[in-house]
Amino acid sequence: MNLAYKILNAHLKKGELVPGTSICIGIDQTLTQDSTGTMAYLQLEAMNVGHVAVEKAVAYIDHNMLQTGFENMDDHEFIKSVARKHGITFSKPGNGVCHQLQLENFSHPGKTLIGSDSHTPTCGAMGMIAIGAGGLDVAVAMATGKYYVQCPSVLQVKLTGRKAPWVSAKDVILKILQELSVKGGVNKIVEYTGEGLSDLSLTDRATICNMGAELGATTSVFPTDENTLAYLKQQGREDEHVEMKADDDATYDETIEIDMSTLVPMVAQPHSPDNVVDVKELEGMKINQVVIGSCTNSSLPDMMRAAKILKGRKVAEDVSLVIAPGSSSILSMLAQNGALADMIHAGARILECGCGPCIGMGQAPLSKGVSLRTINRNFKGRSGTNDASVYLVSPEVAALSAVKGYLSQEFEDDMALEEVPDTPFVKNPNFFISEYIPDNEIYMGPNIKPVPRGDKLTDTVSGKVVLKVGDNISTDHIVPSDSKLLPFRSNVPHLAKFSFSKVDPEFYNRAVKNNGGFIVGGDNYGQGSSREHAALVPNYLKIKAIFAISFARIHRSNLINNGILPLVIDAKDYDFFNDQDDYELSDLLTAVEEGKDIVVTNKNTNETITAHLSLSAREKVMIQYGGLLNAIKELGGDF
Amino acid sequence: MNLAYKILNAHLKKGELVPGTSICIGIDQTLTQDSTGTMAYLQLEAMNVGHVAVEKAVAYIDHNMLQTGFENMDDHEFIKSVARKHGITFSKPGNGVCHQLQLENFSHPGKTLIGSDSHTPTCGAMGMIAIGAGGLDVAVAMATGKYYVQCPSVLQVKLTGRKAPWVSAKDVILKILQELSVKGGVNKIVEYTGEGLSDLSLTDRATICNMGAELGATTSVFPTDENTLAYLKQQGREDEHVEMKADDDATYDETIEIDMSTLVPMVAQPHSPDNVVDVKELEGMKINQVVIGSCTNSSLPDMMRAAKILKGRKVAEDVSLVIAPGSSSILSMLAQNGALADMIHAGARILECGCGPCIGMGQAPLSKGVSLRTINRNFKGRSGTNDASVYLVSPEVAALSAVKGYLSQEFEDDMALEEVPDTPFVKNPNFFISEYIPDNEIYMGPNIKPVPRGDKLTDTVSGKVVLKVGDNISTDHIVPSDSKLLPFRSNVPHLAKFSFSKVDPEFYNRAVKNNGGFIVGGDNYGQGSSREHAALVPNYLKIKAIFAISFARIHRSNLINNGILPLVIDAKDYDFFNDQDDYELSDLLTAVEEGKDIVVTNKNTNETITAHLSLSAREKVMIQYGGLLNAIKELGGDF
Repeated sequence: MNLAYKILNAHLKKGELVPGTSICIGIDQTLTQDSTGTMAYLQLEAMNVGHVAVEKAVAYIDHNMLQTGFENMDDHEFIKSVARKHGITFSKPGNGVCHQLQLENFSHPGKTLIGSDSHTPTCGAMGMIAIGAGGLDVAVAMATGKYYVQCPSVLQVKLTGRKAPWVSAKDVILKILQELSVKGGVNKIVEYTGEGLSDLSLTDRATICNMGAELGATTSVFPTDENTLAYLKQQGREDEHVEMKADDDATYDETIEIDMSTLVPMVAQPHSPDNVVDVKELEGMKINQVVIGSCTNSSLPDMMRAAKILKGRKVAEDVSLVIAPGSSSILSMLAQNGALADMIHAGARILECGCGPCIGMGQAPLSKGVSLRTINRNFKGRSGTNDASVYLVSPEVAALSAVKGYLSQEFEDDMALEEVPDTPFVKNPNFFISEYIPDNEIYMGPNIKPVPRGDKLTDTVSGKVVLKVGDNISTDHIVPSDSKLLPFRSNVPHLAKFSFSKVDPEFYNRAVKNNGGFIVGGDNYGQGSSREHAALVPNYLKIKAIFAISFARIHRSNLINNGILPLVIDAKDYDFFNDQDDYELSDLLTAVEEGKDIVVTNKNTNETITAHLSLSAREKVMIQYGGLLNAIKELGGDF
Repeated sequence: MNLAYKILNAHLKKGELVPGTSICIGIDQTLTQDSTGTMAYLQLEAMNVGHVAVEKAVAYIDHNMLQTGFENMDDHEFIKSVARKHGITFSKPGNGVCHQLQLENFSHPGKTLIGSDSHTPTCGAMGMIAIGAGGLDVAVAMATGKYYVQCPSVLQVKLTGRKAPWVSAKDVILKILQELSVKGGVNKIVEYTGEGLSDLSLTDRATICNMGAELGATTSVFPTDENTLAYLKQQGREDEHVEMKADDDATYDETIEIDMSTLVPMVAQPHSPDNVVDVKELEGMKINQVVIGSCTNSSLPDMMRAAKILKGRKVAEDVSLVIAPGSSSILSMLAQNGALADMIHAGARILECGCGPCIGMGQAPLSKGVSLRTINRNFKGRSGTNDASVYLVSPEVAALSAVKGYLSQEFEDDMALEEVPDTPFVKNPNFFISEYIPDNEIYMGPNIKPVPRGDKLTDTVSGKVVLKVGDNISTDHIVPSDSKLLPFRSNVPHLAKFSFSKVDPEFYNRAVKNNGGFIVGGDNYGQGSSREHAALVPNYLKIKAIFAISFARIHRSNLINNGILPLVIDAKDYDFFNDQDDYELSDLLTAVEEGKDIVVTNKNTNETITAHLSLSAREKVMIQYGGLLNAIKELGGDF
């Protein structure tokens, strides 16, 4: 058995480990962040439960930390009040990024974790199964300890060789993205094996697992070994080490091999993390901004490597370099060991520990500017500047280029950090609140609006195609995530006004005018973040079904959770749909119940095609009841 | 001669030191920050000059640092390009707050400084005459080395006694504000004297001079002494020390005495910095947020005192404590001496060095929340949360209260910092760019719009009263300064839409519909910041005159610079003005030329009153030409 299936098997509650079938697994840990968390906790509150049913649930505040209006602090206070009521640990703002903190404080080999953030797989570095999910799925896991997911197949990535100097973990995952693309991991767990593992520290592995989300993978996982133990030891957690590895005769559904010794520094070009080329190809490109940080590359070793390059040097006059350490512990250690002073002295701006620029929460680049970032995503507009070009690179390339003023790999010998200095780990427990106050009063600020609810499935559904889009539509397209909208994640009616605004500014008005309707997409519809708002908003706008050639995993689940039909169409039928024509789905009740194809009629031309809907038994119930919350209300959390 | 007049006299170019008359003084240094700077540099560009005419001109970036859209970095780039073209030193974002940086790097006893920020008087601590002014005045000073100002009288504040433990410089200035009110300093220089001086360090004096702006004072000034020398020594600048003090037989226009030994910790209540009571009166008030920083209280000693209180303690679970050191040098020193780690360990959030929460740029409190801040202003809504209550206190009271969770003065003995540790000063020169590239190309982002220009004065002006407001209207009322609007300081048409929006949301539409008109205010109209947008926006909206019982000094100058008549009315005539009635000013050309009172007719009732307009010769020209830029264009910069 491979490691992924070993952990899944140890947690299996329902179903069998057959790829493509629905399984239910027991969940040990959950995490939320604040931008998805407010909605998840509204949903948890709607379920009327007591103490959470998992070993450890943590509510992090890391997204909405700029606080440019009352909405953010109101949300933080709401989340804190819910956390106390249900025995959830609350991580105060300033503590750092959820994935970095979860890794530092709660990661544990062999455990399962789901989190309402697409980069939850970061903890796969610790030999865990850590999966990103919609907020409602996380709420259900907190309430019941269970999570339903399509059983993934397992893709083995066999690592051989040792990285050349100046090649980093970031380059390993960029190489894999170049090979597999942003949909190469859909419904797969990526399991790393091979002698190359020893050349990857625990935080290197975290970078790789983190950005495995960009493959569309269910998650990524590494076995544990002496590097795992070294990380735990540094934190005084060595007693928590458990050996987790695949059997010697383990089998995999697919295998690719990466010889790390052949890798060179790489860069993902705008506007997709799989648009990867060698740094060499773009060397000399003038840059305006460099950002080092985010859950992908903000560990102590990442920061130390950047600091070593910056030490005694000067950030180019025409570059704004911003650095955001991943956690308060890392910031403390950087202060202690002098690296922070080296960064500042070079001219780096030090941001508060949090997601920040990665999610467009500040540090928007110049108009038409070029920004080099160590983050995980470079979707158009995500930086806050719609016409900016964001390139993804390693911290080493980022720091060097900040000094040079252009994209560079002209490293000098004295820039190399021989060894991460043995800085004692600094714990900052005062950022955590762990209480259980069953009758705690819930704080509700004026920006917190009710969760939209769907209607029960009817036999016929008709409406206009109110939007037709192409391939790789991301959740950022569906519900933009920028500094102006992030504060409104608990206010769906407000968010709705900006839905698809970067694709078609008239979408909202058209959807309202037509009282909902249908959306047509291409391949990999709904890729990107775990944001369930990309389904809550269509639910609120009465979108009844999405037609697409394929769906991203988390988004598909979110649609079903919201009672919206994710209908798969054949590529040849994409042209069947015309913007503004009227369509009808008929005999839906039988089709859903019996798993039959669904007949779609263009009412303007009377032509028909069939669309495909493959639902698990539980998903059927959700669709029939108009969403998971409705189903739980009628049938209880354990249906 | 007193110290204030000694420095003025040494710089006098025109006029005589007679209070109330117009004088022209030579300017040694200028500073701008980014929110007023973009407009100031647009105006400088309009004057078509070469290298600046002052010894040192510095362009700081400290306001718009969140960068939630492209506008901010575009503005930074614009300012940098202008700085290079005219030999102005550019301070990169991340370097810190302008006043703290000016004090650390360029303050010099006996020099004159004007800055496009109302807290420019901070450098008065160094025995300088440092005055806040509108951006256009600063632009003219950069172009010509001269500044025209109404000669102030000099108010002596004689300090005696020694502060009791836990009484700080902040309490000294809060006491003075309590005694004199926010208009107690209008057209005065506050000069500090007395044996109490020895109990105030240079940075204590900076706090007092900084918040002297809240008195409405032209500026504040301290003599130099061994405390001045100690500060310069720490920075390796002792050779720049010059003895500056009043003659032994100096005279003053007024004198008040403060016995510092009688002072206790104090707090300014919402929504005015002069609404001051003893902390004791509000002790126990629950708080949600504490902010330590801003140009008022972000020096190394301030930070060290707060850190000592926080060391080994825990920020209360229901308090969000944010700390923003005043400069990159202070941040470096805090990292080096361990104080930063102490703050973080207690649970403090560390923000980037900048103005931040003080100007509503992030960290907006909870709805209806209570925020304790070490900043200088607590105007309603300035925090970003309109219904929040902001209280102003010392760093010591702030830090203690953060630990307690409520407003407190229950200090413990081991909280006292016996002495500020002798941390070597860390210079961070890589944040400064000092170049002179005469043909440097100016960068113009799409958010940068032209400066509005007024029309030449006509003999009759008529229009509606489009707004009537009460006393103490601040520049925050006229043009709100929050995180949503600060990025638009170089875009007057956009800002105009929000003018007076917190007072009367219909003002903008009414002003546009009526093609301008008149505004009526009460006492102390235009208090607060130096923001000339509070005059640029009315200019853009074609407001021809403001009637008020009295005007704040900087705002009055800004109105005249924009060709808007600042007409003083008698208090008894306030009721003469009815919202929406039509009024006419007649025989204006003669009245302005000859300094006569102006007849104002209510066209609805045919009643008349007279309004007063006392203009210097130069101000007359500005009004006649429709503003300073028009006058310079026709007559040259030296008219």
